[in-house]
Amino acid sequence: MNDIHLSPAAPPHPQLLKSLQQLIMPVSPIDLGAREQAGLRQGQLTKPPGALGRLEQLAVDFAGWQGNPLPSLRWVKVRVFAADHGIAAEGVSAFPQSVTVEMIRNFARGGAAISVLARRTGADFRVVNLGTVAPLPMSDSVHPSVRDLQLAPGSANICREPAMDHGLLAAAVATGADEVVDCDLFVGGEMGIANTATSAALASALLNLPAEKTVGRGTGVDEDGLARKRAAVNRALALHKPHCHSPLETLRRLGGLEIAALAGAYIAAAQRGIPSLVDGYICTAAALVACRINPGVRDWLLFGHRSREPGHQHLLSALNAEPLLDLGMRLGEGSGAAAALPLLYSACDLHREMATFAEAGVSGGAI
Amino acid sequence: MNDIHLSPAAPPHPQLLKSLQQLIMPVSPIDLGAREQAGLRQGQLTKPPGALGRLEQLAVDFAGWQGNPLPSLRWVKVRVFAADHGIAAEGVSAFPQSVTVEMIRNFARGGAAISVLARRTGADFRVVNLGTVAPLPMSDSVHPSVRDLQLAPGSANICREPAMDHGLLAAAVATGADEVVDCDLFVGGEMGIANTATSAALASALLNLPAEKTVGRGTGVDEDGLARKRAAVNRALALHKPHCHSPLETLRRLGGLEIAALAGAYIAAAQRGIPSLVDGYICTAAALVACRINPGVRDWLLFGHRSREPGHQHLLSALNAEPLLDLGMRLGEGSGAAAALPLLYSACDLHREMATFAEAGVSGGAI
Repeated sequence: MNDIHLSPAAPPHPQLLKSLQQLIMPVSPIDLGAREQAGLRQGQLTKPPGALGRLEQLAVDFAGWQGNPLPSLRWVKVRVFAADHGIAAEGVSAFPQSVTVEMIRNFARGGAAISVLARRTGADFRVVNLGTVAPLPMSDSVHPSVRDLQLAPGSANICREPAMDHGLLAAAVATGADEVVDCDLFVGGEMGIANTATSAALASALLNLPAEKTVGRGTGVDEDGLARKRAAVNRALALHKPHCHSPLETLRRLGGLEIAALAGAYIAAAQRGIPSLVDGYICTAAALVACRINPGVRDWLLFGHRSREPGHQHLLSALNAEPLLDLGMRLGEGSGAAAALPLLYSACDLHREMATFAEAGVSGGAI
Repeated sequence: MNDIHLSPAAPPHPQLLKSLQQLIMPVSPIDLGAREQAGLRQGQLTKPPGALGRLEQLAVDFAGWQGNPLPSLRWVKVRVFAADHGIAAEGVSAFPQSVTVEMIRNFARGGAAISVLARRTGADFRVVNLGTVAPLPMSDSVHPSVRDLQLAPGSANICREPAMDHGLLAAAVATGADEVVDCDLFVGGEMGIANTATSAALASALLNLPAEKTVGRGTGVDEDGLARKRAAVNRALALHKPHCHSPLETLRRLGGLEIAALAGAYIAAAQRGIPSLVDGYICTAAALVACRINPGVRDWLLFGHRSREPGHQHLLSALNAEPLLDLGMRLGEGSGAAAALPLLYSACDLHREMATFAEAGVSGGAI
């Protein structure tokens, strides 16, 4: 097993180091026998071989993940991780920072896009507040759809200092990991004003790309806002990149609390044998961090949609990922993944419920 | 109103001509006021404007179709039209012609892909047998999910004669139209061994393309089969193209019973104010025929998926259509449309159920 590499300047507490070492424990193995049996079944179902395209592949993937040639998708957990970002002070978002808290309330009360989509698909839904500048009002803090942790009043401004100290990083990563239990599929989402800026910084650092390639309009900043956002990301990169000696240290310096939680969730899910359906730009940045920390994670990821945020394609290419949907969405929250979720249900249903040629008494093809 | 153009050599019976004249009656108008109100609402929902991409546009489309700024999608009819094709005798399919009847039984008993997908989405499902070489066994003929018409033992071999006479054409078109009532959305599908060959002939005639551009492997013919299929389509085009003076005559000469039914269904749906979700290659060929007969139909069509059948792209381009899904499917039956159906439900739910900025107490963007 490799060691986990952190900043040598500020070595973390031994207990904390142990919790971060957890991140590089091996992922759960894929059941290749179940995949093979599922593939054989696909060849016997009443359709020309391959005619269901990617829906066939999805069913085979779930067979390998579940160790069951007849997989079924029942328990889906949708978790939106929310947090504030110090870089918002640089004027990089079209929305005020108060929107993070306001949207947490909207998630809880069922009015946000991801709330509607999770409800329609019957998924178990919760928003996890890692930390906002202003704490949640008590009535929202105790809402059954909210887990309010408030680890810190957001991450620090990465233009000036690392986003998190080691302790906060470990706590955020562990929070994400905690949420991924007892389900057939994990769908991560995020909310955090300015988090496309943070994600762009991460993408630039991890992929060695200039900010011009990774910074987009996010929630919809104007030309001036876009210029400010690029400049801010460039300042953050100039400050931190010389110290980004490992993916975990890159996450600590340039990430955010919800991004760390997502990375922790993707890693823990893979270790526990639970596949994850990745959303758009921010989630894919977290997924890339997760795969750089623990490359085995990649085998447990599906990608829901291609975001209109231009940097997303760079992350997808780096992960060799082909998303299921391409609908010009760019909302985040997990909405693109949730929109793709019915395709996964359909794939598993088709695989289980279609008749074989023999069962249906249908003549086979010219085989 | 334009006249309907048929073969001058064999003018149809006046009663029949009247029924075909029905095809060029105007389509239902789109409610532009409802579209505008829906567009305004999309701008007030708790998300950056446009962030839900095509899901926003779908909701606006349904508002215009339903004349309701808050549209909802409740009653969806999925109809698979089935028929045999005389061109199967030319060895153009990887499957024997008996498969058409065998698959009708499979549809009825719930074992086909479209059966599974219709069940999952809660759509009303029926297979309509226009006519097969061997009639359906009695037990299937009276199945509640089957409408067994058996108008003829399939269409004629288009390499030798027109697919249908005028009476059969009118009956097939009317059958399709009959099926489209009392619903919020029509999803057409098809089954008919050799119907990718027929569709290729239609596409070549309507788009003035050589068979090399429109003939693909369909259910999966090998190299020899592909060559036979191309040659057969070329023979059919050589025989009929000089006589294809109108889209309806092209349909009569080169189409099939289920393709005529689909064209009739798309036209009647648009006339009755019901949008249609179009499936893959065969359905899109029928949709092009429908739009050539009655151009207003185009405003009432959505396109579910891009088929892997290479000719599909030519049809989509001619219709200026951008499908919702691109998953490498090529099964037909309506399966690609049914796979896309949850996106339409999601779009309407998001539009109706998301909170506005005012309702949620969320600060608006930099507007």
